[in-house]
Amino acid sequence: MRFPITTLRLPEWVGGFLPTPKMPYPTVEDRMEIVVGLARENVERGTGGPFGAAIFDLETTRLVAPGVNLVVTSGLSVAHAEVLAISTAQNVLERFDLGGEGMPRLELVTSAEPCAMCSGAALWSGVRGLACGARDEDARAVGFDEGPKAPHWDRYFEERGINVVRDVLRDEATAVLNQYVERGGEIYNARRGGS
Amino acid sequence: MRFPITTLRLPEWVGGFLPTPKMPYPTVEDRMEIVVGLARENVERGTGGPFGAAIFDLETTRLVAPGVNLVVTSGLSVAHAEVLAISTAQNVLERFDLGGEGMPRLELVTSAEPCAMCSGAALWSGVRGLACGARDEDARAVGFDEGPKAPHWDRYFEERGINVVRDVLRDEATAVLNQYVERGGEIYNARRGGS
Repeated sequence: MRFPITTLRLPEWVGGFLPTPKMPYPTVEDRMEIVVGLARENVERGTGGPFGAAIFDLETTRLVAPGVNLVVTSGLSVAHAEVLAISTAQNVLERFDLGGEGMPRLELVTSAEPCAMCSGAALWSGVRGLACGARDEDARAVGFDEGPKAPHWDRYFEERGINVVRDVLRDEATAVLNQYVERGGEIYNARRGGS
Repeated sequence: MRFPITTLRLPEWVGGFLPTPKMPYPTVEDRMEIVVGLARENVERGTGGPFGAAIFDLETTRLVAPGVNLVVTSGLSVAHAEVLAISTAQNVLERFDLGGEGMPRLELVTSAEPCAMCSGAALWSGVRGLACGARDEDARAVGFDEGPKAPHWDRYFEERGINVVRDVLRDEATAVLNQYVERGGEIYNARRGGS
């Protein structure tokens, strides 16, 4: 038996959308602004859901790897923005543990608080920081499902040495969620509780 | 800026290890047996961690797509067995919602209870059933981290119409975890709580 290879490929426009690799993003708001920009562009280009993410090196403050949501266009339910950003960063840096020895502090910036799956993915990635734009309730308000997250999930991150910052440009990030719904974008959750 | 494409590629041996595609697996123990076999073979071949998974069609009882843990060999922290099985099944069936209209009931069988990330991945996949071998505590006992799972996570699955069966060939599945550790296999979790 032979089985297909799974590929996660960022849309062509992403490379052109981002400024030079040397661009610094000194503040968390700077970093969130480009990430919300990725989410917005993903909606406007019709390449996926209203979510963006990226991994940043907190020493150089440069962007290491971007991600956008590609569930519908890739046909893969794991293709959330965080999974794209984490996996692309691991390819760029050639290691599965982004917090391993000799690594700079890396931060995952995401335009909405990570769902149950992506919370786990963030923990396993080895990042040292997590910055979030829209809240879970903002995503839920437009119909997205965040899943069964542990209560006080952010404390769990802190206990593992992962610094969590919430509500960074929350209004701007939430505006992209609303923009997606207004454009008739698909709320692509798997059926919910249906039998 | 250009970024690498992420690929999730099952090891070469997987195709030869599985019997003909027409092979039926009528009972959940039959299905778990081949999944634990995938986990064991993955350890013995040195291609990844001691975890296997597969998606089965509960109408034909045939295997749709297999998965094995490839974190260390792929360099990707998301490359858990369940992510491989789900993504491969979505490629085979050409749809991201495995529970969408017109689909047969599909079951995810996994050699150990899914971690926080894979619990979310299972929910988003659209499968209608989840069968688990080893328990979270069996995986934790050898050093693996299951992450911040919601209390009573299985009830949450049931509420969404996903039938959960636990402890299927638990001893056999746990034996593979122990085999991995005895062989000196890497416990590849990201650093835990280190600052």
